Amino acid sequence: MSDPRPIGMFDSGLGGLTVAREVFRCMPGETVLYLGDTARCPYGGRSEETIKTFGMQDARFLVEQDIKMLIVACNTVSSVALDYVRAEVNDIPVVGVVQPGARAAVQRTTRKKIGVVGTAATIRTGSYEKAIHDIDPDITTYALACPLFVPLVEEGLLDSDITRLAAHRYLADLVAKGIDCLILGCTHYPLLLETIQSTVGGGIQLLDSALWAAREARDILFAMQGLSLQPGGGRERSRFYVTDVTPQFAQNAARFLGSPLSNIEKIELEQLTKTI
Amino acid sequence: MSDPRPIGMFDSGLGGLTVAREVFRCMPGETVLYLGDTARCPYGGRSEETIKTFGMQDARFLVEQDIKMLIVACNTVSSVALDYVRAEVNDIPVVGVVQPGARAAVQRTTRKKIGVVGTAATIRTGSYEKAIHDIDPDITTYALACPLFVPLVEEGLLDSDITRLAAHRYLADLVAKGIDCLILGCTHYPLLLETIQSTVGGGIQLLDSALWAAREARDILFAMQGLSLQPGGGRERSRFYVTDVTPQFAQNAARFLGSPLSNIEKIELEQLTKTI
Repeated sequence: MSDPRPIGMFDSGLGGLTVAREVFRCMPGETVLYLGDTARCPYGGRSEETIKTFGMQDARFLVEQDIKMLIVACNTVSSVALDYVRAEVNDIPVVGVVQPGARAAVQRTTRKKIGVVGTAATIRTGSYEKAIHDIDPDITTYALACPLFVPLVEEGLLDSDITRLAAHRYLADLVAKGIDCLILGCTHYPLLLETIQSTVGGGIQLLDSALWAAREARDILFAMQGLSLQPGGGRERSRFYVTDVTPQFAQNAARFLGSPLSNIEKIELEQLTKTI
Repeated sequence: MSDPRPIGMFDSGLGGLTVAREVFRCMPGETVLYLGDTARCPYGGRSEETIKTFGMQDARFLVEQDIKMLIVACNTVSSVALDYVRAEVNDIPVVGVVQPGARAAVQRTTRKKIGVVGTAATIRTGSYEKAIHDIDPDITTYALACPLFVPLVEEGLLDSDITRLAAHRYLADLVAKGIDCLILGCTHYPLLLETIQSTVGGGIQLLDSALWAAREARDILFAMQGLSLQPGGGRERSRFYVTDVTPQFAQNAARFLGSPLSNIEKIELEQLTKTI
């Protein structure tokens, strides 16, 4: 058994390409239909109501195109609207980026102290803490918003003195709490992995939510006998839709995906909004 | 002669409230109809096409409500789409935030060396340099994008070590060029005025584009005999529309306007998009 249909995946912008990158790594036979809502990103600072509306519009657009699974590669939508999106998507599995990272951290912590970093919006929802406590209520969690990390990544300041100062300022308190696992709860943060690791020291394990979401997607497809076994998956046969082609687009896409991306298609914002 | 109608004003978000603040200061009889497109902000990183579409939608919404003047309090729209907006708005004057600041700098520079700082999008358009050279082609301009300033302001880090480090990193080269005027070409930057001034030193005059836009609006209304002379203008009688009420909304609005804002009305995004 094998299902040749693509995996649908959306994010408010391009950060979700870090999830796509992990999907291609751990499932080389798969193709992806990616949607980045670059005309309306970032979602993080918006109201819950608006996040739900935008998330449902993104999901519907992808579901209309016959996908076998939907990955919500956006921490904001995964945190506040995953159930809403699931209700839109009846027949296929929906994977968010919050639960997989939380589960991986719970399995790894020995001190039962887990830190979580993310955007202000993700942290405000408490989604990672809730996911952790649903598995093990005895774990102590320390969640912290690091709102400068996203603009620092988008500026390409992956290893600058400003980034190191910001990382130290954000993370010193978390380290002092004695955590042994730190969840990177934002798709942009894997690009700061080295700066963050050198700031917190080698004794703290970093858990990249993009990586764990891709692995969970693989496990589900395997269990459903839906993994694509055909040759010729990967990014070249995948499709990448965006709602706006912005000037820094190509540079950021390459940064998140690990190498340049040529097969990008712009769709009109009306193609998302018409369906609601 | 006096025109009691309000002044319409829009920005992608709340930064334009720094312009509203200056309007209330220099025209105490005026009321304002403010629109902040908080469901789709920031516009800065988007394509020119999308900026034009969003800007025209914002302008139309305000013009439908019988305003006597339109202030485009958004540097991005002022830089790339002011003529488009003017074409939408036939009968009333349209004031952007670029030309007034540029004119003020040209009048003040003695060394004929002017610096401009703004978002990446504003700087990329070259709008301030063009406005300066239209008046005096002999002036040398140095334009620089400072993309971390907006997130730093929105985080309330107005006077932190990170902000000072970022300011120093951005501005040291500009100072070395020998400029004597520096245009703050972003509505967020007035909040960093003290940090920027202490970074560049007292020999460089800072020109706040919000302030000069408000003064130009006053001069035009005065010349048209359209200044409102009635008592009871000001923010309490003004109306503030937004397309999304976000969690950090109230805090940011107070920061930009200088004191808390209570009379805010949320409109649906469809009220903007339906008109095109």
